[in-house]
Amino acid sequence: QGKFSVDEHPHKRKNILTNGWVLVSPHRAKRPWSGQTISKSNPSIGNNPDALASATKYLDSCYLCPRNKRANSKANPDYPGVFIFQNDFPSVLKDQPEFSAESISELVNVGNQTKAKLKPVILSVYIFNLYSRFLLFLLDANTDRLFQIAPTRGKCMVICYSPNHSYTMANLSIEAIQLVIHNWIKLYFELSLPLGPYPNPKRTINYIQIFENKGEEMGCSNPHPHGQVWALETVSKNVAVELENQKNYSLASCKSSTKATDQHSCMLCDYVSSELNTSKNQTSGSNSNRIVLENDSFVALVPFWAIWPFETMVLPKAHYSNLCQLLSDTFTKIDSSNVNDFQNLVDNLCSQTPTSSNSQSESSNTPPASKLVSDLASILKRLTNTYDSVFNSSFPYSMGIHQSPVLDHPDGKYFHLHFHFYPPLLRSSTVKKFFVGYEMLGEPQRDISPELAASRLRSVIPRD
Amino acid sequence: QGKFSVDEHPHKRKNILTNGWVLVSPHRAKRPWSGQTISKSNPSIGNNPDALASATKYLDSCYLCPRNKRANSKANPDYPGVFIFQNDFPSVLKDQPEFSAESISELVNVGNQTKAKLKPVILSVYIFNLYSRFLLFLLDANTDRLFQIAPTRGKCMVICYSPNHSYTMANLSIEAIQLVIHNWIKLYFELSLPLGPYPNPKRTINYIQIFENKGEEMGCSNPHPHGQVWALETVSKNVAVELENQKNYSLASCKSSTKATDQHSCMLCDYVSSELNTSKNQTSGSNSNRIVLENDSFVALVPFWAIWPFETMVLPKAHYSNLCQLLSDTFTKIDSSNVNDFQNLVDNLCSQTPTSSNSQSESSNTPPASKLVSDLASILKRLTNTYDSVFNSSFPYSMGIHQSPVLDHPDGKYFHLHFHFYPPLLRSSTVKKFFVGYEMLGEPQRDISPELAASRLRSVIPRD
Ligand SMILES: O=P(O)(O)O[C@H]1O[C@H](CO)[C@@H](O)[C@H](O)[C@H]1O
Ligand SMILES: O=P(O)(O)O[C@H]1O[C@H](CO)[C@@H](O)[C@H](O)[C@H]1O
Repeated sequence: QGKFSVDEHPHKRKNILTNGWVLVSPHRAKRPWSGQTISKSNPSIGNNPDALASATKYLDSCYLCPRNKRANSKANPDYPGVFIFQNDFPSVLKDQPEFSAESISELVNVGNQTKAKLKPVILSVYIFNLYSRFLLFLLDANTDRLFQIAPTRGKCMVICYSPNHSYTMANLSIEAIQLVIHNWIKLYFELSLPLGPYPNPKRTINYIQIFENKGEEMGCSNPHPHGQVWALETVSKNVAVELENQKNYSLASCKSSTKATDQHSCMLCDYVSSELNTSKNQTSGSNSNRIVLENDSFVALVPFWAIWPFETMVLPKAHYSNLCQLLSDTFTKIDSSNVNDFQNLVDNLCSQTPTSSNSQSESSNTPPASKLVSDLASILKRLTNTYDSVFNSSFPYSMGIHQSPVLDHPDGKYFHLHFHFYPPLLRSSTVKKFFVGYEMLGEPQRDISPELAASRLRSVIPRD
Repeated sequence: QGKFSVDEHPHKRKNILTNGWVLVSPHRAKRPWSGQTISKSNPSIGNNPDALASATKYLDSCYLCPRNKRANSKANPDYPGVFIFQNDFPSVLKDQPEFSAESISELVNVGNQTKAKLKPVILSVYIFNLYSRFLLFLLDANTDRLFQIAPTRGKCMVICYSPNHSYTMANLSIEAIQLVIHNWIKLYFELSLPLGPYPNPKRTINYIQIFENKGEEMGCSNPHPHGQVWALETVSKNVAVELENQKNYSLASCKSSTKATDQHSCMLCDYVSSELNTSKNQTSGSNSNRIVLENDSFVALVPFWAIWPFETMVLPKAHYSNLCQLLSDTFTKIDSSNVNDFQNLVDNLCSQTPTSSNSQSESSNTPPASKLVSDLASILKRLTNTYDSVFNSSFPYSMGIHQSPVLDHPDGKYFHLHFHFYPPLLRSSTVKKFFVGYEMLGEPQRDISPELAASRLRSVIPRD
């Protein structure tokens, strides 16, 4: 395996100005690129309805289509539904040489005049716990903390939504989207294993991020419908902050409550019910409704604080902390007592193909999708179709799931599962909002109000 | 003036998941767009050296060229050097209707089932002071804080660097860049007036952000060389966090020091000297040098924690907290005793034109640029030329100045003035790094190591 090298092996570094971390994946520079290039005539399937109409189900040159060969890898199977494989150019590696202060000491050639020392940080402690974070801060404050670096191992998976090259989430059948959801659940579940004790220094995965980049504008290198799952040793800053804020809200509400119950309130439960209320109590002429879509179990809304012009969140109305809880009431908590049952159920659900699940009654072995999963599939389909209607073009976005970092995270119960959709378009299918200058140096800035964006989205919801 | 309306008037909203704020500028949606559109054949001057060579000094259709008319505005003067005007589509307004809980109550139609209340926040207190922030947090935790909104007034200025339409910072003469710097100083100084007491509720400007978006990839709507200055009522999250971290570092170093001096150490002073040391002590074969350029007063380096492939920071080697301090030792502190002298000096410097200052001795009225300003001009010119050499094309970037939020900010002394350059290109003049999916949902991720980026930049520094 050799020695750890910062020019070769993934690691994290701390930005001492912002307290943020950057994930450095030096080996990825070798990755080939078939995505967007700038300022070239490059009509993308994504933005060109004609191209979409004429697009074939199967493309010889696509490394995600069934039966085709991938870079550094064997041929894809002739998959009928969802196909999952390990990213050929992962941002993190499962195995890499041991990381120690010596192996990276070259980064800072310590002279006499400076006290700067390279400081590897035990990130698992650092990020997972607010209190230890504070202790570490006190500790740090008095020592040198200019150069902080942390190892980070992990796994990167790719999940193809469909064998059909020309599809997007909006084109998939409800059954096909349910199959995608079941596979997200399976990935999240299996990457969380083995469960407890927590934190477990032997475990290399403590954070699972499911996401999708759609469209060339969003750095997607291949229009074949697919998403990604990055599973890392360390929780990302964004998820750690969201978790911390949700936990603080719950604990504070608990203290301020006069009834001594164990019933904490949840920030996003309160937020969703408040938004639903505002929407219901709308007086004519007022325009404060941020709800875009709603069904029995889920809402899609433009958050009060949205950054991107047509940004939305999809949230369950009730409190669920992770995808697994959507399968059945039996699995609100998964532990050693039911982990095998859960594995069987999820394997069973994932073995279906979209066509076979169309006729669910045929086989008694394949359980139907739960009400929650089918409501989620339905709102995802309606939302992506609504996006495509805004400018009558395939709407690019980055989408991702925020939930408990892993299934058995001790603070996971405070997290309210949600999807973020970050679409870049602003004024037409070709004019996007730029997150530049003031946004990079100061803070996000948006041009249309979230309320107007929601009303615009509502006005183009396609009929079912 | 009428009533405050969230669909019309700029304001800020709080993201309760991240504690970040978003600046909402609903009136900007009316802005015309002549910048980049996606996936169209659209050869940009920025990326096309041929187009650059043939570009004219003056363009009829450019609203920034001398003598031309701007939107909603009169004709530009026939300016010889730098030209400053108020943005015709500002993100914030100097005057807007009073903001009160009632004027925005429509945003949340409070029902019976929810306790959610719209909460306007006194941001000036919230953001400026760490302790009051913490108090507010405690207070907040027990009340409802789902919908937080804050008024924010301000001014947006545009600064044209040169009458020549085809120039960039890289093409300008040192004298012309000095003139730009002198005008940045003048803007920062004048927007900070009247000085003290602080905080002053009557003052509408408490944060001044100077920046430049260059190239269509960076949302620049016009290639005419220009930057922007946004001056706001409230400090942005990024600058507030940088200030807080620098202050904490200084105060901690003070406590841990055995000598009871008033001499706090500064985080970026320590960082710069450590980087210079590493660079000096480089052993052959090792590759830990992150310095790109250096002169007597400034360094340009790829920060240890850089996010963008070729990101750099430009920093003075000694401690300066704001641009004004670069003019002369006499003005390390500007207060009522010397504010008029400073105004005279800066007016004098800005009245020069690049050609007249070429022969500085001609007029005894026009003082020469200080050593610091001329070293800064020189390193900015060399750095932008280095960028253009990486892929042999005009390199796009967003650039901005971080310094004390305003001249008389009480914690301003902890700030170490610096420039951030955020360039998007990764592998060629047409392949950029996308800040999408994992980056948006989790944390920044980079592909080449900062050390390799620095060595790549060093290898293409053009000779003077
Ligand atoms: O003000 P401009 O140059 O028209 O606009 C540009 O810079 C602004 C500030 O960074 C951004 O908000 C815009 O998205 C960008 O296009
Ligand atoms: O992994 P991919 O699809 O090749 O790459 C895409 O997604 C990644 C994760 O969001 C980004 O880091 C890349 O910039 C983007 O091009």
